[in-house]
Amino acid sequence: MANIKDIAKMANVSVTTVSRVLNNHPYVSQEKRNAVLQAIEKSNYQKNYNAVHLSTGKTFLIGVVLPYSNHPYFGLLVEGIANEALTLNYNIVLIQTNYDKNRELEALDMLKHKQIDALIICSRICDWDTLKHYSSYGSITLCEDTRGRNLSSTFIDHYESFFTALEFLASKGHSKIGYCIGRTSGTNSTQRESAYRDFLQKYNHPYEVHYIFNNCLFLEDGEQVIKEIKKMTDPPTAILVTSDQVAAGMVTCCHKENISIPNKLALIGFDNQPIAKLMAITTMEIPLVQMGRNLVIQATNSKDTTYDQFKSRLIERETV
Amino acid sequence: MANIKDIAKMANVSVTTVSRVLNNHPYVSQEKRNAVLQAIEKSNYQKNYNAVHLSTGKTFLIGVVLPYSNHPYFGLLVEGIANEALTLNYNIVLIQTNYDKNRELEALDMLKHKQIDALIICSRICDWDTLKHYSSYGSITLCEDTRGRNLSSTFIDHYESFFTALEFLASKGHSKIGYCIGRTSGTNSTQRESAYRDFLQKYNHPYEVHYIFNNCLFLEDGEQVIKEIKKMTDPPTAILVTSDQVAAGMVTCCHKENISIPNKLALIGFDNQPIAKLMAITTMEIPLVQMGRNLVIQATNSKDTTYDQFKSRLIERETV
Repeated sequence: MANIKDIAKMANVSVTTVSRVLNNHPYVSQEKRNAVLQAIEKSNYQKNYNAVHLSTGKTFLIGVVLPYSNHPYFGLLVEGIANEALTLNYNIVLIQTNYDKNRELEALDMLKHKQIDALIICSRICDWDTLKHYSSYGSITLCEDTRGRNLSSTFIDHYESFFTALEFLASKGHSKIGYCIGRTSGTNSTQRESAYRDFLQKYNHPYEVHYIFNNCLFLEDGEQVIKEIKKMTDPPTAILVTSDQVAAGMVTCCHKENISIPNKLALIGFDNQPIAKLMAITTMEIPLVQMGRNLVIQATNSKDTTYDQFKSRLIERETV
Repeated sequence: MANIKDIAKMANVSVTTVSRVLNNHPYVSQEKRNAVLQAIEKSNYQKNYNAVHLSTGKTFLIGVVLPYSNHPYFGLLVEGIANEALTLNYNIVLIQTNYDKNRELEALDMLKHKQIDALIICSRICDWDTLKHYSSYGSITLCEDTRGRNLSSTFIDHYESFFTALEFLASKGHSKIGYCIGRTSGTNSTQRESAYRDFLQKYNHPYEVHYIFNNCLFLEDGEQVIKEIKKMTDPPTAILVTSDQVAAGMVTCCHKENISIPNKLALIGFDNQPIAKLMAITTMEIPLVQMGRNLVIQATNSKDTTYDQFKSRLIERETV
């Protein structure tokens, strides 16, 4: 492919003149301009966009860090991110970490090396000091409560959301309540754990460690939880399930095993995924698509640090 | 941030010397090398990766065009693509088109402008001439049968796959068979349509236009199909459902409406998504994760045009 020097040679002008024509600079005679345009036409010259980026310093790429590319929670979030990015003329670079710290660091290095304009971290494992260090190189936006940390974020008050769901179960007469969670570390999980402990204390219920099910992310994990509950001599009567996907797995398994929902086991899902509507699962709706859109708006407005809290909402269906 | 000129000034050396140190060039005295390294340390200089890309001509980015970022079919494909990209040290740029031709052209322009090294098109709307034109700028790999078109691809023989599923239904005594599809255009859909017509001809069954359900992509679409079938005076007794997601929606809806599966209505899904296993849906397995991995291998080996056909496989469960 011809480069700028080839074009200059073909048009019999200087490299500077070619550059001026490419950048619509006014001080070029019409004659020379035409010669350059003809040479470009002839040679099929393509403006090297990386060169353009060097001068503007912008890539119009936003990095999106997420642990799994194929999970419905992140699916809805990425749907919002992708749509808003499209609107603002950005493309997104998907960086799947599987919660491997080195991969998250590679993503942060992309920001440092100006390969992306901004980074959205949907779920994090690096510590705050690391993020603070990298935020000097470019905009980092998170999907968890970052108030007091000087990093922008879009988040749900997971403490309040969990407490609301627990109070709803209490109002229906439940006292033996457990929960399923994707991972026990991370800001969101810590907030949920606090809400759970405060709820137990308020009602004077004991903390039963086997009522808490970790690593629950996919449909199949719901099946596993039901199997564990079936083995218990004093099982929970209700479960908060932090993923509708897992809740759907539990409903399907209960149906197979003739465990009546909600009589024998009540369930509250989270997110309000399409499957929750279809299977009539009571759920705490989280507006993930809108949150994804907001993350992009924050990521591209890197001047101000903003903390945008979104509301979750209980949707009553048939599993409580 | 300091640039290469600032570093040269700080170290009291020429720009060429700084460049040599950055590129590990041997002809630099240890004294000057140390001065440059100290200046870099002091100024927190970052090598501009876009500049590096200019010299190597590589971005280590692969563009991935897909109509919807949040659909389980593309979810599995992207899972494979993302994992293999990670292995080969590439990142992926997700380009969601919603089947808008202009967005597909924008992705092709990214290839033309060297913003990405290669493009994978998971589902296409541009015509062959357009793709052929853009393939002169870089590697384009498709997820449909491209034999004879001089573009690499990873694909399933959808004719054979559809015919196998139809023959299985015939062997179970079905003669009134319909199918659900995401869209009627595209190579894959055309192959399926041919298989369906040839099957009808082979068994002398009439072509019933209302047995074909278009725009079936999501869980909710399955519900809609069941509603339409319920209204028919002479409904099909079996349906090929080209997405397990839609099949799951149909199973859930039939359960609510007391339509017995497989007695009243038999179903064969496609893909073998986790939901098909969980809901015991008979399905044609398509190895989407492996296909995604293969697409990346082809995209990054742009020297040879290869056509890699993968096999689908019937998994018998409880819906036929």
